[in-house]
Amino acid sequence: MASSSSSSNHQNPEVRKDIISNRWIIFSPARSKRPSDFKSKSPIPSNPNPNQPCPFCIGHEHECAPEIFRVPPDGPDWSLRVIQNLYPALSRDLRFGSNHANRSGSVLDGFGFHDVVIETPVHSVQLSDLSPREIGNVFLAHSKRIKQVASNEDIKYVQVFKNHGASAGASMSHSHSQILAVPIIPPNVSTRLESMKSYFDQNGKCCLCESQSENLLINSSTYFVSLVPFAASFPFEMWIVPQYHSAHFHELDDEKAVDLGGLLKLMLQKMSLQLNNPPFNFMIHTSPLHANASELAYTHWFLQIVPQLTGIAGFEMGTGCYINPVFPEDAAKVLREVNVPE
Amino acid sequence: MASSSSSSNHQNPEVRKDIISNRWIIFSPARSKRPSDFKSKSPIPSNPNPNQPCPFCIGHEHECAPEIFRVPPDGPDWSLRVIQNLYPALSRDLRFGSNHANRSGSVLDGFGFHDVVIETPVHSVQLSDLSPREIGNVFLAHSKRIKQVASNEDIKYVQVFKNHGASAGASMSHSHSQILAVPIIPPNVSTRLESMKSYFDQNGKCCLCESQSENLLINSSTYFVSLVPFAASFPFEMWIVPQYHSAHFHELDDEKAVDLGGLLKLMLQKMSLQLNNPPFNFMIHTSPLHANASELAYTHWFLQIVPQLTGIAGFEMGTGCYINPVFPEDAAKVLREVNVPE
Repeated sequence: MASSSSSSNHQNPEVRKDIISNRWIIFSPARSKRPSDFKSKSPIPSNPNPNQPCPFCIGHEHECAPEIFRVPPDGPDWSLRVIQNLYPALSRDLRFGSNHANRSGSVLDGFGFHDVVIETPVHSVQLSDLSPREIGNVFLAHSKRIKQVASNEDIKYVQVFKNHGASAGASMSHSHSQILAVPIIPPNVSTRLESMKSYFDQNGKCCLCESQSENLLINSSTYFVSLVPFAASFPFEMWIVPQYHSAHFHELDDEKAVDLGGLLKLMLQKMSLQLNNPPFNFMIHTSPLHANASELAYTHWFLQIVPQLTGIAGFEMGTGCYINPVFPEDAAKVLREVNVPE
Repeated sequence: MASSSSSSNHQNPEVRKDIISNRWIIFSPARSKRPSDFKSKSPIPSNPNPNQPCPFCIGHEHECAPEIFRVPPDGPDWSLRVIQNLYPALSRDLRFGSNHANRSGSVLDGFGFHDVVIETPVHSVQLSDLSPREIGNVFLAHSKRIKQVASNEDIKYVQVFKNHGASAGASMSHSHSQILAVPIIPPNVSTRLESMKSYFDQNGKCCLCESQSENLLINSSTYFVSLVPFAASFPFEMWIVPQYHSAHFHELDDEKAVDLGGLLKLMLQKMSLQLNNPPFNFMIHTSPLHANASELAYTHWFLQIVPQLTGIAGFEMGTGCYINPVFPEDAAKVLREVNVPE
């Protein structure tokens, strides 16, 4: 048994409201162990079935739904592929438009695009194994696909996300991310825009352009900074935020994509080392496709990484408030100090 | 293999907006199997360690945090106990009031009450094993405790919830529910009040007093009706709604509590039979404690039951939209037809 003294200065629970999500979070360290003792109880095997090819493996392209594009564009030796999801949540074949409201709510046809980015041809390679350049290429593929679907006026928002590990929602262990283009502005996006507008109206600045508290920072790169948000919903949640003002993720250029790839790689390595290779999700929070000029002034895209360490239970489902057992300043300190071998 | 023909008339995905939660839900049956084929992959053992006493078992009261009250009030032979949570998310010992805002958001001291209702003295008994009268007593205990904490003006809302099964968040297998009294109006509650007010302003009626679509109904009792909501977030989500207008759960009287106990018992039995005894959560959605008179006209409490069949992944975390593979009308039909042995 290690010493029972806590590395935290926080002993009492605290309730914080996040200005981005407009959500209250309960920080309750007494429920739990020391911040540095958090580990995943169901880590992901580092080398899942390397000899068992799956439909996402190179040479098995015929087992997949149709391809949208590959990188490089021609030939059999691809480094990544963007394909249709075999089980799409929304249908690209529906015509949008026939919608109606009834007593219980509104109904729209389920039109949209649900695509998959196969991030590597090799089954045993994880995203964090790729080079900054290769991870940058994954982001550029997301970006290219967003620009393609943006030409459809009925698509209002595009959610890019990654589920890593079965318990984080991944049905395939081969490294991939997803792009879901939806015909509505999702509720979290509306709330975020309203909150960020409110901050901008009061302070004359974008809230994510403001320099962040030093005790919440983890690392930085040329164009990005990684941090634990002041009112993180989940223990060891991390954000990667552009240091330059930008409303739309898909405006990422080549140089910034590689820089982002490097910082994401470092964060995934730190998370894996510190938290015992947990299942995780990441989500890119961007602006609606057809945002107006005033919205662009106060919205600022960022990438959210959530390691799966705790579950969502009745209190969270009922209230929309989350209980986080690790204070953000403590999580940031732990993550700052993780030593990643070269 | 059973016939592959679907019992559903719904083949294409659909997007529905719920008027209560103001949330968009994507219904996507193509991703999944027939509605009647949904089963929990991690059912709860029906008789968990009956011979292994835990702190919630009768005779082990000294291992628990302090008792608040028991039923019946005196003597060692209790049928239920309300106790403090040994690991409270909020502290009853803090003084509320010292709060401040900074650049990143608002901060409040973590004041509140976090209590546990031990629903039975016997480890192997589940809530659905109790009689309607006994389940009614559990609701009356919730109600009594809400009235007690309501005397504290700093408590704004009380969330009653039950986590059943480890993967639904229960740290103890002995049947219990929780009461968390918070110093804020939670975001889901604010959103619900705004949505219900908007419906009331447009229609002059409380949206939950309106008679429900027949194809969404499951069962009814003297005072309550059970149904699948029109835009259910989760597959086989069920609501129990009072047929009389009532803003506050804690105004439940003895007769209605027993009636509610009987309908909840039936729903839990049906869920267990149909879905292979899944882990589940239930949440009581009520009104803020110090609601004003106009709010009382359009708010209507209800109980939400969510069997744990699917997880929350990156898309849901990012957007706040849920993807539900079972259309509510199909889920209601399946649940209506479950035959519960007498």
